[in-house]
Amino acid sequence: MSVLLVGAGPGSADLLTLRAARALESAQVVVHDRLVDPSVLALVHRDARLVNVGKGPGDGYTQEHINLQLIDLAQRYERVVRLKGGDPFVFGRGGEEWLALRAAGVDVEVVPGVTSALAGPSAAGIPVTHRGLSRGVVILTGHGADDDHVVVTGLGRSELTLVILMGVAQRARLARELIADGRPASTPVAVIERAWTSSQRTRRGVLRQLGELDVHAPAIIVVGAVAALDLSETLALAGSSASVA
Amino acid sequence: MSVLLVGAGPGSADLLTLRAARALESAQVVVHDRLVDPSVLALVHRDARLVNVGKGPGDGYTQEHINLQLIDLAQRYERVVRLKGGDPFVFGRGGEEWLALRAAGVDVEVVPGVTSALAGPSAAGIPVTHRGLSRGVVILTGHGADDDHVVVTGLGRSELTLVILMGVAQRARLARELIADGRPASTPVAVIERAWTSSQRTRRGVLRQLGELDVHAPAIIVVGAVAALDLSETLALAGSSASVA
Repeated sequence: MSVLLVGAGPGSADLLTLRAARALESAQVVVHDRLVDPSVLALVHRDARLVNVGKGPGDGYTQEHINLQLIDLAQRYERVVRLKGGDPFVFGRGGEEWLALRAAGVDVEVVPGVTSALAGPSAAGIPVTHRGLSRGVVILTGHGADDDHVVVTGLGRSELTLVILMGVAQRARLARELIADGRPASTPVAVIERAWTSSQRTRRGVLRQLGELDVHAPAIIVVGAVAALDLSETLALAGSSASVA
Repeated sequence: MSVLLVGAGPGSADLLTLRAARALESAQVVVHDRLVDPSVLALVHRDARLVNVGKGPGDGYTQEHINLQLIDLAQRYERVVRLKGGDPFVFGRGGEEWLALRAAGVDVEVVPGVTSALAGPSAAGIPVTHRGLSRGVVILTGHGADDDHVVVTGLGRSELTLVILMGVAQRARLARELIADGRPASTPVAVIERAWTSSQRTRRGVLRQLGELDVHAPAIIVVGAVAALDLSETLALAGSSASVA
């Protein structure tokens, strides 16, 4: 009994890995989330069974239910793929599914994917690290932040690039907390909606405006000096070339 | 004139994206770093020209030299691929090359890759985020840390997973700084060498031992509670299943 835990990448089907594409083509069952792009599911063999476990804000499947369903399918099929948007271990709860499967005697292998946390900014011409602007990148989630703080104290004062997944609903609070923690209110921000799809849209501003930006989930929030860059804009590039050297 | 800036993924050729593989197959010239795996270069068309710019610790090519070479090649060939290990924007200096190319009138497109910063830990059974253990992940580099601190103050006290690339030589200092900044000396650490290759090796310990671990570059350092997990070990899993629930 085995399950392949596969990252679906950030959206576009050709951003799957070769190994992930092969796994989809040979799977008998593919268990997927709501946000996996239809173009990715089109790679699945036509005789295979697709199971949408539709986990997402506001719907009913619990993680426990998904775990039990995966165990059940692993007992009935030889080639089961659990397909997750982005990478299975970047807020994908892949670790929890892996633990539940192994506890039930099911073997698990992982196929990493391109995470939208890093590829989303790329799609908008934003390098998450850039010499002179950012010494590193922090990936956080706004989802499940039901305690007092969305962000971790200490990140405000750092000059690290912050990337927040599932943070659209919490964006005003996120901005307030970062400013209270020492990030200048004038820090550039960018919000990338539906990265790597034909309907991609980017909104830019500064931290104090984050709550007022007209953005819709799913989207990726980037906070930090790099969020002001758009490497795909020739003029902006020519202008910024000196200042970021 | 155009250049495709392509992420080669963490090692194994089948962890390239479909888009990256197609770019390699149709390129006339591929400009690559020293650390790109031979199995990846084997995807390049046999008539294409391979240019090893071999940037790495201790050799002579400067970033300026590479930028000029890319501009020169873009003026002479139609399909130039600049291939970088992992993802071009995760300490890949892809942004700098993009800026230099655009300043010279060369169009650039990016193909994101699976970064070894996230896939390396996966290969060792370590989920970089895991409910109850890690609220997020920070990606840093030890390379170029010629100022006083490898790590950013404030990260010690956080419970975020830290992933440090190119940090093997600086690992003793890194551990001292993190402990001084508030991370318990007993925090789990893992060092993954040559992830996703047949010679992969993982060393584990706690933060105070990081400097003494027998490890060799290139390797990925993981600091945080998740570094104690190995999801691929059934017994460890059964044991840790309760404690991480």
